[in-house]
Amino acid sequence: MTLKQTRNETPLYIKVHPNDNVAIIVNEGGLPKGTVFSCGLELTNHVPQGHKVALIDLNQGAAIIRYGEVIGHAVQTIVKGSWIDESLVQLPTPPRLEELSIASNVPALLPPLEGYTFEGYRNANGSVGTKNILGITTSVQCVAGVMEYTVKKIKAELLPKYPNVEDVVALTHTYGCGVAINAPDAIIPIRTIQNLAQNPNFGGELMVVGLGCEKLNPERLVPEGDSGKIISLQEHHGFIPMVKSIMEMAEARLDRLNRRKRITSPASDLVVGLQCGGSDAFSGVTANPAVGYAADLLVRAGATVMFSEVTEVRDAVHLLTPRASSEEVGRALIREMKWYDDYLQNGQSDRSANPSPGNKKGGLANVVEKSLGSIVKSGTSPIVGVLSPGERTAEKGLIFAATPASDFVCGTLQLASGINLQVFTTGRGTPYGLAVAPVIKVSTRNSLAEQWHDLIDLNAGRIATGEATIEEIGWEIFHLILDVASGRKKTWADHWGLYNDLALFNPAPVT
Amino acid sequence: MTLKQTRNETPLYIKVHPNDNVAIIVNEGGLPKGTVFSCGLELTNHVPQGHKVALIDLNQGAAIIRYGEVIGHAVQTIVKGSWIDESLVQLPTPPRLEELSIASNVPALLPPLEGYTFEGYRNANGSVGTKNILGITTSVQCVAGVMEYTVKKIKAELLPKYPNVEDVVALTHTYGCGVAINAPDAIIPIRTIQNLAQNPNFGGELMVVGLGCEKLNPERLVPEGDSGKIISLQEHHGFIPMVKSIMEMAEARLDRLNRRKRITSPASDLVVGLQCGGSDAFSGVTANPAVGYAADLLVRAGATVMFSEVTEVRDAVHLLTPRASSEEVGRALIREMKWYDDYLQNGQSDRSANPSPGNKKGGLANVVEKSLGSIVKSGTSPIVGVLSPGERTAEKGLIFAATPASDFVCGTLQLASGINLQVFTTGRGTPYGLAVAPVIKVSTRNSLAEQWHDLIDLNAGRIATGEATIEEIGWEIFHLILDVASGRKKTWADHWGLYNDLALFNPAPVT
Repeated sequence: MTLKQTRNETPLYIKVHPNDNVAIIVNEGGLPKGTVFSCGLELTNHVPQGHKVALIDLNQGAAIIRYGEVIGHAVQTIVKGSWIDESLVQLPTPPRLEELSIASNVPALLPPLEGYTFEGYRNANGSVGTKNILGITTSVQCVAGVMEYTVKKIKAELLPKYPNVEDVVALTHTYGCGVAINAPDAIIPIRTIQNLAQNPNFGGELMVVGLGCEKLNPERLVPEGDSGKIISLQEHHGFIPMVKSIMEMAEARLDRLNRRKRITSPASDLVVGLQCGGSDAFSGVTANPAVGYAADLLVRAGATVMFSEVTEVRDAVHLLTPRASSEEVGRALIREMKWYDDYLQNGQSDRSANPSPGNKKGGLANVVEKSLGSIVKSGTSPIVGVLSPGERTAEKGLIFAATPASDFVCGTLQLASGINLQVFTTGRGTPYGLAVAPVIKVSTRNSLAEQWHDLIDLNAGRIATGEATIEEIGWEIFHLILDVASGRKKTWADHWGLYNDLALFNPAPVT
Repeated sequence: MTLKQTRNETPLYIKVHPNDNVAIIVNEGGLPKGTVFSCGLELTNHVPQGHKVALIDLNQGAAIIRYGEVIGHAVQTIVKGSWIDESLVQLPTPPRLEELSIASNVPALLPPLEGYTFEGYRNANGSVGTKNILGITTSVQCVAGVMEYTVKKIKAELLPKYPNVEDVVALTHTYGCGVAINAPDAIIPIRTIQNLAQNPNFGGELMVVGLGCEKLNPERLVPEGDSGKIISLQEHHGFIPMVKSIMEMAEARLDRLNRRKRITSPASDLVVGLQCGGSDAFSGVTANPAVGYAADLLVRAGATVMFSEVTEVRDAVHLLTPRASSEEVGRALIREMKWYDDYLQNGQSDRSANPSPGNKKGGLANVVEKSLGSIVKSGTSPIVGVLSPGERTAEKGLIFAATPASDFVCGTLQLASGINLQVFTTGRGTPYGLAVAPVIKVSTRNSLAEQWHDLIDLNAGRIATGEATIEEIGWEIFHLILDVASGRKKTWADHWGLYNDLALFNPAPVT
C-alpha cells in the first residue's frame, strides 16, 4: 500500500495495489479542486473522503483497477485527477462460476502461535463459552409475548440469586407457524433455530417454550426423546401457570449455570465470526485488513474463524476458490454462490442490490469494489470448510459460513454456526450488537471512532493516517478478542446492552 | 345447523349444512366406539373431539361434504359411524380462478344499525384511535438496540408525566437493509412500514429513527420534505446524544398526545380486523360464525371490517367472488389469489402447507375444510374492497385485506391497513396480542375458555353446547368491541401486556 500522509493536513490518498489506476482520498471532508499531492497529481474537481480519484487518464471503456482487480469500466472518458463517482463505473459481469480455479493456490500454513489463552466456560461437548447465559429457545413467534413477560420476571426475581449467570435471553423469532415448513428452503430457518440453542455461550442448558399447535414441532428442537426440556403453553391452565412453569425450568438451569467458573482455555477454543456493516471505501484498507491479520493470528493459534456474506464475496470469489484447501471445499464455496445467484434471480433481483446508499456515500462504487474490500477480512489462510446458512461445525481454521450480507441476518446465522465472539468492522457506524455473543466493533476511520467514542471498541482508522500499521492493529484486535472473551473487558454494546433482534433467514414461503 | 346436545353428557355432534354427510363430535375428550346418538347413529370407533364422523356409508372416491361443500374425497370406503381421519380425505383441486362467478350474487344490504357509539381519540385525518399511543417508526433493524434502551427510559422517565398517553411502542422490525429494495415485491414491506406509522392509534404523531446508511431511506417514511421528523443515529456524537435526541422528539409528541381526550364517536369509526389462529373444527361452527354475525352488525353500523388470510380463503374463493360488490372488486380478489398461488409455487410449496399440526389435531382434515370454516368470519355482507398486503383504506364496509394466514404476519399487515381493533378466534389457544391495537380473543370451545380463563376474552364454545346462539354471541362480541374500543374494558392481552413482535411480510430477497 502506498500511503501519502499526515493527519488531515497534507493531502493524502491511498493506493492499495501497485497496478491500481485509482486511489481513495483520506482527508476528512474530502479535498477541493486544485489540490496537489506530493506526487504531483492535481485534483480537477472536489473529491469526497473515501471516494476515488483517477491516477491516470482513463478512456471510455477502460478498466478501473483497485486492489489490483477490475472493479468496473469507465462509462466515459475520465481525466487524471478527477473524481470517479459511482455513476462513472460500469458494473462488470461477475466471475463465471464454471471457470473458477479451485485449490490451485492453497496458502502454506503460517507458523503455529502458541501460548495464547482466554478465560472461558468449558462445556460438556468441548465447546467453550465466552459468556454464561441462559438461552430459552422458542418454537414459534406466538409465545413471544409470554416470553417477554417471563424473562423480565426471571431477570428481576431469579437472576440476582445466581450471580455467575450473566444474562437470560429468549430466542424469539418470527418463524415457527404460518410457514411452508416442507418447502426445500425451510431447512435453513429450522436448523438455525436448532443450532442457535447449541451456541457455546448457553452452556448446553437447553429449554424450549412452544405453543402446542405450531408447524415447527418443538420436538425437532430437542435431542430425540428429550421432551422433558419442552414447555407447551397449550398444556397449561391459564397464564400464571405458564409463567410459573417456565420460571421453574429456568431456575433449575440457572442453578447449574451458576456453578460454572471461567477456566483458562487455549485460544484454539475461540470461534470468531467476522462481519462488516455500514462499509465504506476505507473498510478494505484499514479495518478489514487488520481484522484479516487478526484472523491469521487466530488460525495460527488453532481457533475457528468464520467469514460470511455471500453477496460481498460473490464478485471476489475467483480470489477465494484458489485458497480452498481441497476440491471439495472449493466446490462447496461455488455451490453457495450458485444457490444465491438463483435465489436473487428467483426474486427478480441481482447482486447490484448491494451496496447500500450509505456504502455509496462512503465511496464504494459497486458490489465489486465492496467485495474486494470485504474478503480482506479472511486474511491469508487456506479456506478449510464451507457451511450452508445456519449449519454448525467443530472444525478449526478458516471457514466460509454462507449467509446474506444483512448485518442482523448474518449475525443470527453466525451465532447458529457456533461463534462465541464476533468482530464487526464499520465505516459509516452502526450500534449493532448481539445478546448471545460479544461483538467487538472496529471503525475504519478516525473520525467515526472519535464521533462514536462510546460505541466503537477499536479504531483501525489510524492505519489510514499512518499512526499504526495493519499488523499493529491486527495484534490489538487479537488481544482485545482474548480480553473480551475472558470477560476482562466489556464491549460498548454489552456496556449499554444494545442488542439486535434475531433475524432468521427464511427463503421459503410464508403461508 | 343441527345441534344434538347437552353439555358433555349426551353424545353430541354438529352437522352444519343439510347436505353434509359428515358431522363433528362436540364432547370433550371425544366419544368411544359403540356410542349411539339420539338419531340412531352408532360410532364404529373412537372419534376425538372436533373430528369428523361419517353420517352415511361413503364409497372410495365419494365426495365428503361439510358446510354444504366438498372438502375432499374418500381415499377408501368409509362406513357410516366411523372416524374420518385426515388421512382418509383426499385434497381436492382448488377452485379454478378462471372460472369464478363474479358479483353474481351480491347480498342485499342489511338494514342500517343506528345509535351505537364508542369513546375514541379523533385524529386530524378523520380516523379514530381506540388507544392513545406514541409510535416510533424505525427504518432499519440496526437501530433496534438503541430503541429498546431508549423506550425503556421514556417509559420510566417521561410517560408518567403524560398520564393520558397509554404506551410508547417502537415499531422495530427486521427489514430496512440487506434487502433487495428494488425487487418488485419489496413494495410490500416498505408500504407496511409506511402505513403502520399511520395507524389511528398513534394519533398522527409521526417520528422516525433511522441509522443513516440503510437501504430504506427514512425520507420514504415521512411526508415529502418533512425530514424534521427523522432522527439519524449516524449524525449524533455518540450514544448518549442519540438517546437524548430521541427522548426530546418523543416528549414533544407525548405532550401533544397527552392533551387528547376520548370523545363519543359513532361505531362507523371502527376499523375492525378479523383473524383466526390455532383453528380447530369448531372454529367454523362457533367462534367464526359469531364473529361473522358481529361483522354484519359492524357493517350495518357503517364501520370497516377486514378479513384476511389468503391461504384460508383460496379454497373457498368461489363462495366469495359472487359476493364482490363489483366486477372490479371480484377481479382484485382473484388477483390476490393468483399472486399467492404463484408465490407458493415459486417457493416450491402449495396451499397444502396449511393447516398446521395443531389444526389437524383439532379435527381439520385439510385447507379446504379450514377455509370453509374461516371465511364464515366475513359474515354475509357484500365485499366492497380488496387491499394488497399492507395497503390502507378509508373505505367503509367489508374489505378483504390480502395477507398470509400467519397470525403475527396477518396482525402486522392489518395494523398497517389501519385497524384500530382486532377480533381473533382460536380453537387450540394462543396468547397472541398486538401492542398497537386491542385484540379480543374468542374461543371456539368451552374447554379452552375454562382452561385459559385469564387469556380468552369471550367464549363462543357455548354455541356448540346450545347454551347460546350464534346471534347472541355475535351481539356479545359487538358490545365487547365497543367497550374495549372505548377503554372501558381491557383485553387479557392488554392486562398482561402480551404483545407479539411486528413480523413484516417480505417476499423479496434478502441480500
